[in-house]
Amino acid sequence: MYNTILLGHGSGGTMTGDLIRNMFLKYFKNPCLEMLSDSSVFSVDHNTLAFTTDSYVVDPIFFPGGDIGKLAVCGTVNDLAMSGAKPLYLSSGLILEEGFPMTDLETIIRSMAEEAQNAGIQIITGDTKVVKKGQCDKIFINTAGIGILEDRYRHISAGLHIRPDDRLIVNGFLGDHEIAIMAAREKLNFEEPVASDVSSLHHMVHALLENGIDIHFMRDLTRGGIASILDEMTENRDFGASVDEASLPIRSQTKGLCELYGFDPLYLANEGKMLIVVARESAGPAIEIMKRFAIGSHASIIGTITKTRPGMVLLQSGTGGSRIVTRLAGEQLPRIC
Amino acid sequence: MYNTILLGHGSGGTMTGDLIRNMFLKYFKNPCLEMLSDSSVFSVDHNTLAFTTDSYVVDPIFFPGGDIGKLAVCGTVNDLAMSGAKPLYLSSGLILEEGFPMTDLETIIRSMAEEAQNAGIQIITGDTKVVKKGQCDKIFINTAGIGILEDRYRHISAGLHIRPDDRLIVNGFLGDHEIAIMAAREKLNFEEPVASDVSSLHHMVHALLENGIDIHFMRDLTRGGIASILDEMTENRDFGASVDEASLPIRSQTKGLCELYGFDPLYLANEGKMLIVVARESAGPAIEIMKRFAIGSHASIIGTITKTRPGMVLLQSGTGGSRIVTRLAGEQLPRIC
Repeated sequence: MYNTILLGHGSGGTMTGDLIRNMFLKYFKNPCLEMLSDSSVFSVDHNTLAFTTDSYVVDPIFFPGGDIGKLAVCGTVNDLAMSGAKPLYLSSGLILEEGFPMTDLETIIRSMAEEAQNAGIQIITGDTKVVKKGQCDKIFINTAGIGILEDRYRHISAGLHIRPDDRLIVNGFLGDHEIAIMAAREKLNFEEPVASDVSSLHHMVHALLENGIDIHFMRDLTRGGIASILDEMTENRDFGASVDEASLPIRSQTKGLCELYGFDPLYLANEGKMLIVVARESAGPAIEIMKRFAIGSHASIIGTITKTRPGMVLLQSGTGGSRIVTRLAGEQLPRIC
Repeated sequence: MYNTILLGHGSGGTMTGDLIRNMFLKYFKNPCLEMLSDSSVFSVDHNTLAFTTDSYVVDPIFFPGGDIGKLAVCGTVNDLAMSGAKPLYLSSGLILEEGFPMTDLETIIRSMAEEAQNAGIQIITGDTKVVKKGQCDKIFINTAGIGILEDRYRHISAGLHIRPDDRLIVNGFLGDHEIAIMAAREKLNFEEPVASDVSSLHHMVHALLENGIDIHFMRDLTRGGIASILDEMTENRDFGASVDEASLPIRSQTKGLCELYGFDPLYLANEGKMLIVVARESAGPAIEIMKRFAIGSHASIIGTITKTRPGMVLLQSGTGGSRIVTRLAGEQLPRIC
């Protein structure tokens, strides 16, 4: 093995072969991948599938709570889970900068393998490209994911069952990922540091669905934060959403940093948070189930679906006022994920 | 719309939404994508699937015969086709450099859409990230692909039916893609310019399979060229391969350039070429079917599977000598695909 990535590691020749054997096969061990074929072959027992992809360009690549590898697995697993699907298989496409340290790559690959195991999915196909120094920044990872979707959950993704009086629930503190990245990038020191919330959500989602929680909508709160998801959810629909500002789980460090930088916590990125919309009578049981999971220990009801103001999201302040929540325009922080 | 890509186009907010509507939906129009969900949902009627991914970092992004968009569709379609699968769905993950011209993006997206239609597949899920100027080089594209695989073709990928006296066939001139990229990069002028061979191979593969050609192995000749594929195919197997140098379809321009730069045409990258191994009696009919396609018009038998020299590839020269063909060590030309 070499100490750094060289252009030859992306050549498709012997150096690529060595990297596959000594790195990818070592950590991603599974029969599909070991075939080392151009395509990986697998069988499914459902005929409805979910398919998603995301590229990850987060900077820094190592941050409190995780790294780009863990993020690349969790992010795609969560996209599948949010559609109600059971995540099964992932692909991994790496773009590496010439000179990237081999030990860093190993840390990232190990982290992907650990999170894949944790999430119960397999990384069964992959690709590695190497570009010259200065032509990309360290490492970019794309993962695509396949899951199986039971027909009874097909309505969730489009929110077809959302109706007035439904309850909005989030599973914990908003903005942890963006705060952690910002702190790492700006070298900020908090008394109580905020770690990224990067986590796979699908075991918790699975528990909700298996326990008969009537989920009408579900979406992870990534780029654009909860504001963007609420806005997407209500856009051109015959209902609105009302969010109670006081009930939003926001850490004091997050509040402080937002005031300092002029950010709005509603737009902060998360990587282990989701919004679920459930029938009113399901809200209590849903919270109870979510609290069984570390990632759901601060689950809260934050608002309701309303008949009034269709297509709009209203944030109700503690003082009785309210403001309309719109989607993020422009960029808060680049390369957050 | 803006004239160039800004960081906000990767934010997940309104600018990302505009880009999705005005660019991706416009060209990739299909019901799955229009759901604009985190995951795309589809149904399959076979329970054996093939899954593959590749990232494309080719430089230059526009070259004679194609562009990075066409390449990103063909490359992944071909990986599926080579396993005997029928390609069905693609994902598209873009990483864009801030300042990338919107017209170039539109040309590339249109090119992806055209090639997808040509190949009969749909791009049903995608993601766009934007990094600051200088943090990537123009545009990188990842595609992942899903196809369905009939059980009777499952042996092809691993070459389980390869046996001595089988014939090796390639579908045309070797090295066109690498020569075209090299010429574009070095601004070389040929009297007869060589265009990249970038093409989807799966209609031709489908015709071979449907007409009962007994294909024992099939692989597209990308990075590392035909040498790497022959080497992989024979590695640790109880047969060898003998290739007749005189029968290799190589253009005179390619020969000339290889002599000039000290390259070996066996290692040159292709993006619309494949090696197939067929039973001896199938070789004639296979050539006949391939010649019905523009991409197969120079199909030739180039060698045989041998019982002697197991695990090795021998190149027989016209003068009666022979040399062992090994896999590419190091890199010939970076960012070839």
